[in-house]
Amino acid sequence: MTTLAAHPDPTAGLPPLAQAPRLDRLRDRLTAGGVEAVVVTSLPNIRYLTGFTGSAARLLVTALDAVLLTDGRYQDQAAAELAAAGVDCRLSIGRTQPQQRELLAAAASGVTRMGLEATSVTWAEQRALAAALGAAELVPTHDLVEALRAVKDDGEVARIEAACDIASAALAEVLPLAATGVSEWDFAHALEDGMRARGASGPSFDTIVSAGANAALPHHRADHNLIAVGDLLVIDFGCVVDGYCSDMTRTVVVGDEPAGWQVELIEAATAAQAAGVAAVRPGLGGRDLHEICAGVIDTRGLGELFTHGTGHGVGLQIHESPWAGPAATDTLVVGNVVTVEPGVYRVGLGGVRVEDTVLVTPSGCRPLTKTPKDLSCLPSPRTT
Amino acid sequence: MTTLAAHPDPTAGLPPLAQAPRLDRLRDRLTAGGVEAVVVTSLPNIRYLTGFTGSAARLLVTALDAVLLTDGRYQDQAAAELAAAGVDCRLSIGRTQPQQRELLAAAASGVTRMGLEATSVTWAEQRALAAALGAAELVPTHDLVEALRAVKDDGEVARIEAACDIASAALAEVLPLAATGVSEWDFAHALEDGMRARGASGPSFDTIVSAGANAALPHHRADHNLIAVGDLLVIDFGCVVDGYCSDMTRTVVVGDEPAGWQVELIEAATAAQAAGVAAVRPGLGGRDLHEICAGVIDTRGLGELFTHGTGHGVGLQIHESPWAGPAATDTLVVGNVVTVEPGVYRVGLGGVRVEDTVLVTPSGCRPLTKTPKDLSCLPSPRTT
Repeated sequence: MTTLAAHPDPTAGLPPLAQAPRLDRLRDRLTAGGVEAVVVTSLPNIRYLTGFTGSAARLLVTALDAVLLTDGRYQDQAAAELAAAGVDCRLSIGRTQPQQRELLAAAASGVTRMGLEATSVTWAEQRALAAALGAAELVPTHDLVEALRAVKDDGEVARIEAACDIASAALAEVLPLAATGVSEWDFAHALEDGMRARGASGPSFDTIVSAGANAALPHHRADHNLIAVGDLLVIDFGCVVDGYCSDMTRTVVVGDEPAGWQVELIEAATAAQAAGVAAVRPGLGGRDLHEICAGVIDTRGLGELFTHGTGHGVGLQIHESPWAGPAATDTLVVGNVVTVEPGVYRVGLGGVRVEDTVLVTPSGCRPLTKTPKDLSCLPSPRTT
Repeated sequence: MTTLAAHPDPTAGLPPLAQAPRLDRLRDRLTAGGVEAVVVTSLPNIRYLTGFTGSAARLLVTALDAVLLTDGRYQDQAAAELAAAGVDCRLSIGRTQPQQRELLAAAASGVTRMGLEATSVTWAEQRALAAALGAAELVPTHDLVEALRAVKDDGEVARIEAACDIASAALAEVLPLAATGVSEWDFAHALEDGMRARGASGPSFDTIVSAGANAALPHHRADHNLIAVGDLLVIDFGCVVDGYCSDMTRTVVVGDEPAGWQVELIEAATAAQAAGVAAVRPGLGGRDLHEICAGVIDTRGLGELFTHGTGHGVGLQIHESPWAGPAATDTLVVGNVVTVEPGVYRVGLGGVRVEDTVLVTPSGCRPLTKTPKDLSCLPSPRTT
């Protein structure tokens, strides 16, 4: 057992998170949402509004009041986190779910139109709240908080960028390992260890390391498959800093010159991704962004090989608003942080995906993921 | 960069997972559930029934049909996983959510009472399915699949036990580190690395390592707090093997003889936990189990310090049926895998929690977590 080195704090020197004004920003949206108050059930939304990081809570926000309802496990943690965030929010502890709903109903007395986060609250919870709230009409709300979260402030961008920089540094360190005969799984965990050693709290999602035929599966997870010379290797990964995620994909040919079919895929995905990043600006629709990337792939006769959407917002969740895909209805605005990640996949052979996370700026966008696209992964001498 | 060692496969030699008969077992429950068919939206339930491990799907199960609906990202993976599980289930790919709901509605034609998993499906999805399914009445179902999952078969128990054994081995390796002045965070990650090196796919939840005053917060996460000699150190952790979780908590006094107040807490939690494990048998209520543990703590005058429920089932999810707590309604049956984890917490000072995961057997229970309770954590000489 060796003594472990101390890890750096990647939030040192970053702008603070400005949680305090967010409840009032949500209140400003209630009337347009057709409600007098809202029960927030999405945990990332609760973290965004109050700083509370626990795994079980509801948040009631009315015109003049805010109450965080949780259970005894979180009493002290919740009090400390609310105070640290400087949020004007009461704490109410109920030991059981029915008790918490009763406390919520008492605090919501007089509300006649109560919003519920329809894409977060379960049907069972909606039915239980309907019973507990009695007279109030429940109104399904969509994106009340998510729309606030989609526009990042400086403290949030700084955390996402810190996570992106950690991911890039870890990849630069670990990439030579790919040509040494390791498994996808070992490569993935070396990458995760490299991110944690730099102060990330963990990966932002299950690290995707897909070699050879596995690279044709867009959401393959790392397994015990050995990474072989000549494989296309898709690495799609990220980490978390102070709750905020990063997301980046790079594809390399392992330790060899690419074959003709690999060049075709690499060029198509790279060109589509570059066109997408070049197009990002305020006012662009998420669907337009997708069609720009898909169009580049279509013109190369590979349209059938692009089987997923182009991108998604990144923040407290790895997938959040705004969305870029064939059915997306979002329009990009300054402060969005969004991925651009087209890919092409030949079943049984391999695939290529290239992804950056970018910040939408007044004049276009600024990439937060900075690893070069023309990575080489040269074969290393095997251990003799 | 060192070459990585190959990792063992912890599933080698274990009984296979027997997914194939599960859809019919679910069909046997539909009539009693008051429905002709069900839309399964819980991803762990879908994995249990079909072997599909992706992050987006719905599963329709009717009397004669089963259809897994997902998107293009998962087409090939889903086909391979259904085939590997030997499950009689069709695959249907829809690019967008509305398309998938249309495909589902077409496959469900003729169903007049359709079950929806009320504790999984969101209110928004329930409303969208109500529109797509038109004539069918939607019926909230509870625990249709969870009740099947709560009774583990041999292949499942073997995977949970393999995960428990990996966790125990990793703790035995890493524990001496606690007395070397490391942070909670470093200790947690050394523990996670030790589990992965033994073939676990990752931790089964955010590893809890709580030292000193942090140990008074039952769900504190590991942070940069340094573990000090004399601290109570709560270690609550687990790993995943082939999708199945382990869960265990041990508490030690770091490198010192315990103080009087620490002895009081340690004895109370240990006695309560032992009484709970001794009581576990088929027919015991989850509420009874809780009251047995709480009673032991109450008789020592510490009842106010036990602020959470006693336990929960463990399987594909870290928290699942059956439940043991003050409001629990479950009754234990043979094949349940459940935790027994009372704790006592003195705010500002520290706390103690002791937890085993046990398999309910015809005559009582068999602990799957085997780390001794009387751990010692002696001070190691600092690096000079």
